[in-house]
Amino acid sequence: MDALRRVELAGRLCYKSEDRVTSDSYHRFIQMLIQRKHWSVIEHGYMTAHIVTNRGVTHELVRHRLASFSQESTRYCNYAKGRFGGEIAVVCPPELSNADLPLWRASMQESEKVYLELIERGVTPQIARGVLPNDLKAEIIVTANLREWHHIFALRCGSSAHPHMRHVMRMGLSQAAELFAPVFDDLIELSL
Amino acid sequence: MDALRRVELAGRLCYKSEDRVTSDSYHRFIQMLIQRKHWSVIEHGYMTAHIVTNRGVTHELVRHRLASFSQESTRYCNYAKGRFGGEIAVVCPPELSNADLPLWRASMQESEKVYLELIERGVTPQIARGVLPNDLKAEIIVTANLREWHHIFALRCGSSAHPHMRHVMRMGLSQAAELFAPVFDDLIELSL
Amino acid sequence: MDALRRVELAGRLCYKSEDRVTSDSYHRFIQMLIQRKHWSVIEHGYMTAHIVTNRGVTHELVRHRLASFSQESTRYCNYAKGRFGGEIAVVCPPELSNADLPLWRASMQESEKVYLELIERGVTPQIARGVLPNDLKAEIIVTANLREWHHIFALRCGSSAHPHMRHVMRMGLSQAAELFAPVFDDLIELSL
Amino acid sequence: MDALRRVELAGRLCYKSEDRVTSDSYHRFIQMLIQRKHWSVIEHGYMTAHIVTNRGVTHELVRHRLASFSQESTRYCNYAKGRFGGEIAVVCPPELSNADLPLWRASMQESEKVYLELIERGVTPQIARGVLPNDLKAEIIVTANLREWHHIFALRCGSSAHPHMRHVMRMGLSQAAELFAPVFDDLIELSL
Repeated sequence: MDALRRVELAGRLCYKSEDRVTSDSYHRFIQMLIQRKHWSVIEHGYMTAHIVTNRGVTHELVRHRLASFSQESTRYCNYAKGRFGGEIAVVCPPELSNADLPLWRASMQESEKVYLELIERGVTPQIARGVLPNDLKAEIIVTANLREWHHIFALRCGSSAHPHMRHVMRMGLSQAAELFAPVFDDLIELSL
Repeated sequence: MDALRRVELAGRLCYKSEDRVTSDSYHRFIQMLIQRKHWSVIEHGYMTAHIVTNRGVTHELVRHRLASFSQESTRYCNYAKGRFGGEIAVVCPPELSNADLPLWRASMQESEKVYLELIERGVTPQIARGVLPNDLKAEIIVTANLREWHHIFALRCGSSAHPHMRHVMRMGLSQAAELFAPVFDDLIELSL
Repeated sequence: MDALRRVELAGRLCYKSEDRVTSDSYHRFIQMLIQRKHWSVIEHGYMTAHIVTNRGVTHELVRHRLASFSQESTRYCNYAKGRFGGEIAVVCPPELSNADLPLWRASMQESEKVYLELIERGVTPQIARGVLPNDLKAEIIVTANLREWHHIFALRCGSSAHPHMRHVMRMGLSQAAELFAPVFDDLIELSL
Repeated sequence: MDALRRVELAGRLCYKSEDRVTSDSYHRFIQMLIQRKHWSVIEHGYMTAHIVTNRGVTHELVRHRLASFSQESTRYCNYAKGRFGGEIAVVCPPELSNADLPLWRASMQESEKVYLELIERGVTPQIARGVLPNDLKAEIIVTANLREWHHIFALRCGSSAHPHMRHVMRMGLSQAAELFAPVFDDLIELSL
C-alpha cells in the first residue's frame, strides 16, 4: 500500500469511517485532514531523499529532530584513497559571483593539498578532516515523515533560509509535490 | 525499493561503498550494522502496524516518542450510533481467570449501559466517555522506524511488561521478524 | 541562573553579543526572539507542572513528544490498600450538568466496587484496573521546555481541545504566563 | 527545588509514596530508579552546558534529538568585524603531533586570509563561511535532560568516539558526575 493510502486508512480509523475508502478517496480525505490541521495523521507517510550538498548545509539540516540521517563520514572516508582518487569534491555555493570564484577555488585546492599531505604524513582521516572546508561536498540520505518534510520545506525553502539550503530544498519540494499531492500543495509557490 | 535495501544504501553512503551492493547483500550488511551498533542507519526502514487492544495498553504505547499514532477516538466516535450498533466493544485481558470473568463482564455491561443512557440524555460523547472502562477496545495504527520497533519489542515483549501489552507485542514481533530479517533476529526468543 | 536569563545567554551566544547582557535585558531580548521566530533558543528554559486530572486527559497529554511524564501508575498502585483507604478518586468532568451527575456518580461507585472485589479475589491491580473508568483521577508530573509548553498551551487551551483538558491547561497557562513573562504573552487571552 | 529532588518527587508520584521524602532520600531513591531502569523519571532533571570546541564536533553533537542547541552562527557572525577583530579562532585537535602542527596552522591561516578577503570584496558572511575549516572554533550551549546526558556521555566518552569529542565530553562528565551524583556514577571511569 502506498504512503497516501496508508495515511487515509490511519485517519479513517480515528473516526471509524474505513468503509468509505474508494480507489481515489485519499486525495480529498488528505485535503480535509490538512484543512483541519490533523497533521499527526500525515505522519504515517514517509519519504527518503538523497541529497548532494556541502557540510555547511548538512550541519543545519541535521537539526531536524523527527528525521533520520545517514551522511558521508569525514571520520571514516579517507579522501586520499581509492574511490576518491585523491580528489576532494567541493560544492560551489550558487550565490558566488564569477569574479570571486577563482579566490574560492584556490582556497578549496589549498585545503585539499594540506589534507592529502597530512594523510601522507600518517595523520588519520578523522584528524586531518579539520582542514577541510565547509564547502566540502556532503552526501546525505534523509528519511522523514511527510508532516516533517512539510515543516522542513516550509522553513528551508523560505526567504530566510541559507541560499544554498534553499536551492537544494526547492528542488526537493518540486519532486515531493508531484509524488505526494496534495500534501505539499500549499507550498507550491516555494518550489523551483 | 523495499525497506531493507534502503537501509543498506543509506549505510553504504556513510562509507562510500555503494558499489558493493548485490541482489542480496543487504542481509549481511544489516547484520554488520547491528553488530557495530550503527542503529541510526536502521532508522531508514519503516513498519506500520494495525493493533487491536484496549485503552489501558494504548495509554502506555503512545509514550514512545519516535513513532506516529492514529487511534480510534473516544471524543469523536459516538459508540451509541450506527456502525457501533449500540454495542461497545471491550477486550478481555488474557490473564483473567474464568472464575473472575462474569464479574468483569457485568462491569463492562454496566459501563456500557450508563454510557448509552448519558448519550440519550444529550451528553456529548467526549464527556460520556468518562464512564467507559480501561478495557474498552482500542484500535490504533502505529508507524515507526525499525530501530524504534526494535526498542519497542525489546521493552514490551519482556517479562516486566504489562501482560496484555506483552501478548499484543509478541504477536507483532513474530510477524516483524519474518518480514524484516535480520533486524529482529536477536529478539526471536521473545516472540510468540 | 534562572530559566529566562539562560535563554538570553544561549541566544546571545549565536550572535556573539554576550557583552550586552544587563540585569533586565532578557525581557526585550526574548520578545525579539519570539518576534523573529527563533523558537529553538526558548528551549533552554524549562518548566515542571504537577497536574491533577483524569486518565482520559492524560492519554491525550502524553502524546506530546518533547516532554517528560511521570504518572500515577494503575499497574503498581493498589487502590484497595493503605494510602488509598479503599476509596478510588475520580475527577468529575467540568461540563457535566447537575441533572446527569447522579448517574455518573453511581457508575463511578459501581466501577470502584467491582475493582475492590476483583482485588479481594486475588486479581492483580494491573489486571483489575481494566474496570476502572476514564474519569479515574490521574496525577501527572510534566516537564517540558518553554517552547514546547507554548505549543501545548496554544493547542490545549483552544476551542477545539477537550473541555476537561482545556480547563486544566488554562489554569496552567495563567501561572506560567506570570512566571515566565514574556514567553506566553501572546496566549494571554486563552488563560483563565 | 533542585533537579534531583524534582526527580525524586516525580518518581514517588508514580507509586504514590511522596510521604517517604526526607532531606536526603533522593540519593538512594535515584540509585533504585537507575537499577530498575526507570530512566524516564530521570528526565525531569536538566543540565545546561557551555562547550567550546570546533565545528567538526558540533556537527556530530547536534544529532542528539532530545536536546536543545544554540550555536555561534557562521551565517550571522561576521568574523571580520568588531568583536572578532579579524582574527578567526580555531581549535587545535588534541591528537595532532607537534611535527604536523605547522602545516595545520598554515592551513588555518590561509583559510582565514581568504575569508577576510572575500568579506572585503563584499561577499556575505553566510557565503564566505564556505572556506572556513572544520577546525573553526565553535561555541555551543546544550540543554538536555539527565537521561539524555547519560546517553550522550556513555556514547561520546567511549573509545569509538572522535578523539576531540571524547576530550570535550570527558571534561563535561567529570563536572556532571559531581553535580548530579548518583546519576552518572556508573560512567565515572570514563571521565577525565
